[in-house]
Amino acid sequence: MGELRIQGIGVSEGIRFGRAFVYALAGEGRAAYAERIKPDQVPAELERLEQAKRQSVAELEAIIAKSELTLGKEKSAIIQGQKSFLSDPAFYGEIVSQVKRKQASPEKAVETVVAQLSAVFEKMNNAYVKERIHDIKDVAERLMSHLQQVSYPDLSFIQEPVILVAEDLTPSVTVQLDKRTVLGFVTRIGGQTTHTAILSRSLGIPAVVGTGEAFAALKHGDELILDGTEGVCIVCPDAATTASYREKFEQEQAAAEKLSAYRGLPARTADGTTVELAVNVGMPEEMREGIAEEADGVGLFRTEFLFMHADGFPDEEDQFRVYRGMVEQWNGKPVVIRTLDIGGDKELSYWDLPHEDNPFLGMRAIRLCLHERELFKTQLRAIIRASAFGCVKIMFPMVSSMQEFREAKALALQAMQELKAAGIAYDEKLELGIMAEIPSVIQLADRFAKEVDFFSIGTNDLVQYTLAVDRMNEKVAHLYDYFHPAVLRSIRSLIDAAHREGKRVGMCGSMAGDPLAAPLLLAMGLDEWSMDAASVAKQKFALSRLHAEECRALLERAIDSDTAAEVRGQAKDFYETKFGTEEQRQPG
Amino acid sequence: MGELRIQGIGVSEGIRFGRAFVYALAGEGRAAYAERIKPDQVPAELERLEQAKRQSVAELEAIIAKSELTLGKEKSAIIQGQKSFLSDPAFYGEIVSQVKRKQASPEKAVETVVAQLSAVFEKMNNAYVKERIHDIKDVAERLMSHLQQVSYPDLSFIQEPVILVAEDLTPSVTVQLDKRTVLGFVTRIGGQTTHTAILSRSLGIPAVVGTGEAFAALKHGDELILDGTEGVCIVCPDAATTASYREKFEQEQAAAEKLSAYRGLPARTADGTTVELAVNVGMPEEMREGIAEEADGVGLFRTEFLFMHADGFPDEEDQFRVYRGMVEQWNGKPVVIRTLDIGGDKELSYWDLPHEDNPFLGMRAIRLCLHERELFKTQLRAIIRASAFGCVKIMFPMVSSMQEFREAKALALQAMQELKAAGIAYDEKLELGIMAEIPSVIQLADRFAKEVDFFSIGTNDLVQYTLAVDRMNEKVAHLYDYFHPAVLRSIRSLIDAAHREGKRVGMCGSMAGDPLAAPLLLAMGLDEWSMDAASVAKQKFALSRLHAEECRALLERAIDSDTAAEVRGQAKDFYETKFGTEEQRQPG
Repeated sequence: MGELRIQGIGVSEGIRFGRAFVYALAGEGRAAYAERIKPDQVPAELERLEQAKRQSVAELEAIIAKSELTLGKEKSAIIQGQKSFLSDPAFYGEIVSQVKRKQASPEKAVETVVAQLSAVFEKMNNAYVKERIHDIKDVAERLMSHLQQVSYPDLSFIQEPVILVAEDLTPSVTVQLDKRTVLGFVTRIGGQTTHTAILSRSLGIPAVVGTGEAFAALKHGDELILDGTEGVCIVCPDAATTASYREKFEQEQAAAEKLSAYRGLPARTADGTTVELAVNVGMPEEMREGIAEEADGVGLFRTEFLFMHADGFPDEEDQFRVYRGMVEQWNGKPVVIRTLDIGGDKELSYWDLPHEDNPFLGMRAIRLCLHERELFKTQLRAIIRASAFGCVKIMFPMVSSMQEFREAKALALQAMQELKAAGIAYDEKLELGIMAEIPSVIQLADRFAKEVDFFSIGTNDLVQYTLAVDRMNEKVAHLYDYFHPAVLRSIRSLIDAAHREGKRVGMCGSMAGDPLAAPLLLAMGLDEWSMDAASVAKQKFALSRLHAEECRALLERAIDSDTAAEVRGQAKDFYETKFGTEEQRQPG
Repeated sequence: MGELRIQGIGVSEGIRFGRAFVYALAGEGRAAYAERIKPDQVPAELERLEQAKRQSVAELEAIIAKSELTLGKEKSAIIQGQKSFLSDPAFYGEIVSQVKRKQASPEKAVETVVAQLSAVFEKMNNAYVKERIHDIKDVAERLMSHLQQVSYPDLSFIQEPVILVAEDLTPSVTVQLDKRTVLGFVTRIGGQTTHTAILSRSLGIPAVVGTGEAFAALKHGDELILDGTEGVCIVCPDAATTASYREKFEQEQAAAEKLSAYRGLPARTADGTTVELAVNVGMPEEMREGIAEEADGVGLFRTEFLFMHADGFPDEEDQFRVYRGMVEQWNGKPVVIRTLDIGGDKELSYWDLPHEDNPFLGMRAIRLCLHERELFKTQLRAIIRASAFGCVKIMFPMVSSMQEFREAKALALQAMQELKAAGIAYDEKLELGIMAEIPSVIQLADRFAKEVDFFSIGTNDLVQYTLAVDRMNEKVAHLYDYFHPAVLRSIRSLIDAAHREGKRVGMCGSMAGDPLAAPLLLAMGLDEWSMDAASVAKQKFALSRLHAEECRALLERAIDSDTAAEVRGQAKDFYETKFGTEEQRQPG
C-alpha cells in the first residue's frame, strides 16, 4: 500500500512516529440487530438490557477508581456523570420504556433514545450542553457493546506507545489515557477550540483534528507520521518521507532540548531585568510536572473548570480543597484565583441560563456573580480560606464599572469578617484585583488604580471589545489582532495609570506568551506575564535576548502606527534581526 | 358598565380620547369549517380557493396602488411581498397541495401551512425573518376572509378619528393608515423595539402595546382614554377619570405648544452659541412635515430600511431615486448618508447570512460591505450621484481600523472616477467620514482624524462596546448608561483629537437628543447634534437655557467621577436647578 497524506487542523505542535490505535467508533463494526421484538420476548430482553447495564456500571466504576488516582477528582466526576445516566429516567428509564411499551429491541431503544436526547441537546445552542452529547453517546456505546457482547476497547490495555485515532476524544477516552503510551492524537471532527485541542496542548501531545472524510482511510495498526505543526497525518509513509520527517523531528527535538534549558532559568533580559513569569491553569491535573519550579506563580487560575466538571455547584468544602491543593503546590508563590467566569461561551450543565443573542456582551462573570450572591460568597469564602496555606490573590473578571468592583469587594470583606468571627484562619493581606478586559476600565484606569490592589490584562477579551470582534467568529478573524495600535495604546495607558498609583499590572491573555509581543510588553513595563505552561521556555528564551532601550524604540514606532499589519511587521522584523528567520532560528 | 384600566407598555407619549376601532384579529369571529373534504369535492374546493386568491390579489393590488401614492415605494414593497406569497409554491402551492393530496378543506390547508411556515420562521432566531411571520399571517387572514366571505376590514373607510385597537400592527395595516384619522394605538403584543413602537414614535401618535390578556376586554366602539406616557388604556372612563385626564391632557398640550415654539427657532444657547441640530431619518415617508425647516440637516440617514423593505437588493437606480429625493427635500442642507449597516440585529429576508453567536461582534456593516464589494459599490455610486442634487456626506459604520476606512475610501474614489468617465455629475467635494462607535477609533482618534473628513459618534454602539453590554439584553440593561464616565471620557477625547486636526464631530446616538446630556455635550464642543425628530423642540429648549461656563464646570465634575450613577445625579441636579423638577418644569 502506498503513502497517503491526510490534511487536518494542527492544534498541538510536534512530529511523532507510531502505529495507529483506532478507537472503535460509534456504530462501527456493530452486528446487525432486530428493531422489534415480540411481546413474549420482553422479559428476556429486559433482562439482557439490565445485564448490559450492570456490566457498564461495573466498568465505569473501575475507570472512576483508576481515574481518581491518576487524573484527579474532576475528571472522575465526568465519568461519574456518565454512570448516572444509567440510572437516569430520561435515559435508561426511557430505554426500558421503549422496550416495554413499543417492543423495541434494546439496541433499537438505545439508538432511539440517544437520537432523541441528542436532538434536544443540539437545539440548546450552548457549547457546554452540546458537549454532553458526547457523554450520552459514550455511555450508550458502552451499553451497546455489552448488549452485543463486543468488548468496548479499554485504553489502559495499550502496552506500547501509539498514535490514538478516534472520531473525537470523549471524556471517558480522555480519563483512560496514560500519557506515556500516547504519542499523538488524530480525530475526524474538531477545531482549534475543542476539548481535544485544549487537552493536547496542555499535555504537550501533538494532535491533528478535523481530518474529515479522509479519516476513514486510517486503519488500526497502520504506520503513521503525525505532524501537529502542519496539521498533517501521513499513512504508511515511504522511505523518503520517513527520512525527511526524521530529520525534521531531530531538529525539533534538538531545538526543544536547547529551549528546555531555559525552563528552569529565571526570566531575565539581556540587560539584566528580571520579569515575573507565571502560568495560566485550568484543571489542576493538567499541570505539567516541574512547572511550579519553572514559573513564578499562577497568574490565572480559572475556577470555572471546577464548576464545569461537576454535576452541581461544588460546595465550599469541595472548592476549598481544590484551591488549597493548588496553593500548596505552589509553595508560597502567588496564585491569582479568578472568581467564576461563567456565561459567554462557558456554561454549566446544571444551571440553565437563558439564551442570549450576544452572550459575550451579556450576563456573564462578575455580572452573574453579583446577581447570585450566595453562590459568589461561597466561592469567596473557599478562596479566602485557602489563603491561609500560601499566597492567594483574588481577581474579579468582566468588571466594567467601579460600582461592580466595590460590590464584589464588599462581599469579600463580609466573607472575611464571617471567617474571623468563626475563628477560621486566612491571609489578612489578601489582595483583591480585577481583570482589565473591558474598554471602560482602560478609560477609567486612574480611578480604578486608586481602589484595586492589582490589574491583570485579559488580552483575549480586551481585543474582542476594543475592536468589536468576536474572537470565536472565523468570519471576522482577520480583524482580531492584539498588535492593533489601539490595543497597544490601551495596554500602555493602563500600565502607566496603575504605576502612577503604585499598583502592579499582569497579563493573562495569549499575548503574554507570544515571543513577538515580548519586546513591546517589556517596554511597557508589564509586571507579571502569565501564559500557558507550553510557552514558558519560549518566552524565557525570547526575553534573554532583549535590551530595554531597543524595545522602547520599537514600542514608540508601534504606538505611532496606523494598522495592526504595520505593527506586526515591525515586531517580526525586530524578532528576526534578533533571532534570525524561522529557518535560522535556534536557541542556545 | 364600569370603568376598566388596562396596563400595557407605553411606547409613544401623549394622552388621547376617542372610540376604539377594533381591527379584526386572526381567527376572531371566524365561522366554523370542516377540516376534511371528500375526494369528489376537491375540484370545487380548489376553485373556491382560487377565487379567494384572486380576490386577495385584487385587494392587495388596490392597496399597493394607494400606498405608492400616499406612503412611498418602500412600504408598498411590503405589500408587494405579501402578494408574492399568493404565487409562492411554499405558501400558496403548499395550500393547494394540502387540498389535493390530503383532502384538507382550504381553510384547514391555510391554517396548516401558516402554522408550518411560522414554526420554521420562528426557529430562525432572526428578528427580521420573524417579522415576516406577520406578513404570512396577514395574507393568510385575507385569504381566509374571502374563503369565508367575511370582509377584511379596510382602514381607509375610517371616517372619524379613532383609537386603533389591534393584535399587532401588521405591515398591511400600517400602509392603510391615514394618520389624520388615527388618534392612538393599542395592541395586545409588542415591546419598546417593535414595529408599532418605532412607527408610533416617528409619527408622534401615542401608543400602548403589550396589553396581553386584558386586551380581550376592548370592544369596538368603546370610549377610551389612552395614556402613552404611562402605558395605560382606560375603557369606559367615568366622569372623574375623564375630568382628571382632561386636565393632564390640557397641561400636556399647553406644554407641547410652548415647546413647539422652539421648533422653528435656531438651536442657540443662553449665551449665544448656535448649535447645528440635525435629525436621524429611517424611512423617508416617516419624516414629519416641516422638519426640513426646523432642523439643520440629516445627521444620519439609515439606508438599511431601503434594503429591509424590499424583496431583493435595490439596484443603483432605485437607490439613487430615494437618496436624491431625500437630498432634494433638504434643500441644500447637509444630508449624511450612512452606508449599509446590516448584520447584528438587522437582517435582510433575501440575504441568508449565516448565524453568528455574537452578531454584534460579528460580520456586520462595513465588514460585510468590504466583503461584498459589488453590492457596496452600487450603493456608493447611487449616493455619489445623489450628491449632485444637494449637500451629501458619506459615512461608514462599524469602522474599527484605518485599513477598513482606506479600503472603503478607495472604493468611493473608484466609483467617482467611473462616474466622471461616464460624464455623470456629482459633488467633487463630497466628504467621507466614519461612525465613531468602536473603542479602537477612540484610542486611535489622532490617526483617524488625519484621514477622515468627519466623525459621527454612535453612542448606542459605543456604549455597548465600551462597557461590553448588549443594549438589547434586559438582563444587563442596568449596566448600560451613556453617563458612565468612561463613555464621557471617550467622547471628549475623540472630539479633542478631531478638533486638533480641524475635523468636525457629530453624534447620532440617542444621547444627542437627551436634554440631561445637553450641557455635557455642549461643554465638549460637539459640532453636530443629530436626533429623532421628536426630540428637536425639547433639545432646542434645553439649549436655550445653557451657559458655556457652567456646562464646563459640570463636565469637569463628571469626567472626574467614578460611576454612571454619580454623573447622572449631577446632570439631573444641574437640570433641575435650571428647569425645576419634573412637576415644575414648563418651557416658555
